[in-house]
Amino acid sequence: MKQTLMEPFSLTLDFAAGRIEPATTRIERRLSDMLGMFADAAAEAAAMTDGDPLIYEVLQYDVPNETGQLVVCTTVLHPGRIGDEYYMTKGHYHEKLDTAEVYLGLRGHGKLVMQADHGFSGLDMHSGTIAYVPPYWAHRTVNTGSDLFVFFAVYPADAGHNYGAIEHGGFGQRVVDRDGRPMIVPSNKGVEA
Amino acid sequence: MKQTLMEPFSLTLDFAAGRIEPATTRIERRLSDMLGMFADAAAEAAAMTDGDPLIYEVLQYDVPNETGQLVVCTTVLHPGRIGDEYYMTKGHYHEKLDTAEVYLGLRGHGKLVMQADHGFSGLDMHSGTIAYVPPYWAHRTVNTGSDLFVFFAVYPADAGHNYGAIEHGGFGQRVVDRDGRPMIVPSNKGVEA
Repeated sequence: MKQTLMEPFSLTLDFAAGRIEPATTRIERRLSDMLGMFADAAAEAAAMTDGDPLIYEVLQYDVPNETGQLVVCTTVLHPGRIGDEYYMTKGHYHEKLDTAEVYLGLRGHGKLVMQADHGFSGLDMHSGTIAYVPPYWAHRTVNTGSDLFVFFAVYPADAGHNYGAIEHGGFGQRVVDRDGRPMIVPSNKGVEA
Repeated sequence: MKQTLMEPFSLTLDFAAGRIEPATTRIERRLSDMLGMFADAAAEAAAMTDGDPLIYEVLQYDVPNETGQLVVCTTVLHPGRIGDEYYMTKGHYHEKLDTAEVYLGLRGHGKLVMQADHGFSGLDMHSGTIAYVPPYWAHRTVNTGSDLFVFFAVYPADAGHNYGAIEHGGFGQRVVDRDGRPMIVPSNKGVEA
């Protein structure tokens, strides 16, 4: 099938702020958008009464949803914890499972946790880390530092997002603070549940 | 078709040097690899007798050649001219024409020139420029500065490279120095030829 005939374009990326200019989509996730995803329900409730914190933002430039097109976006994950669990993204599988994603760390420190039918993975990310999410792997990022954690991502425009599997089934790993250091611990949720 | 089951991995990108570590493919293009691509044959011959200059290097991390997988690479374009024409890449179409490519400028200054059946395009690139090469567009980068011009790129792993169309048919635009400033001028080659 012939694809949309497009003209080339350019955007500007602010590496430190993680801003794409212009962006066509801006997603803002507050704690209220992901209640129940953190393990400590009491800590979630306390954080809600303290003002429903902003957990992360995504800025994206949309192109036609066609095989062969690529979407670029940036994610700005704020620093913080709910109980002992670091702020994180909701995490998702691609709807089209056989599609990969490339991350490039721009600022701060984080972890990229992934799960697939056959197991788990956790990669450290910081400025200059290129991380590869292979086809079939659900992926979630976690800010394990005290600064913003910012990264750039590229994924196939026809990949789609399946958030439901994680919202309902959970993720098999959690990233928690243990004596001031981030540690990946098994969850009672996710593919092993 | 089920794709190769891969484990996640990470690489390190040196933004200033444009080095991916580890890389699985390293391509080095000297003037001798692209003789006849610059307009000024006498200047090409003179540069060859001066030592066959290194024009650009590409470092790449290869993944299976499958739809949905993504290849990351960096390009380091050296500064210089052959006659009044700035150092440039060979330029290519994707073999699978309906695939895009994303560039992210990391260092220096350059131009991304593109051509498609219906016309031409030229975009300025510097650190922080995200440039989108849409499906169907041949693309070539040009170092218009006095420093290295370095950029990061992501493209679909099944895109393939068609260098022959440019090697034999030429490119419809040239980027030349005019009184110390880069200018895009029409060529007598390329899609309008």
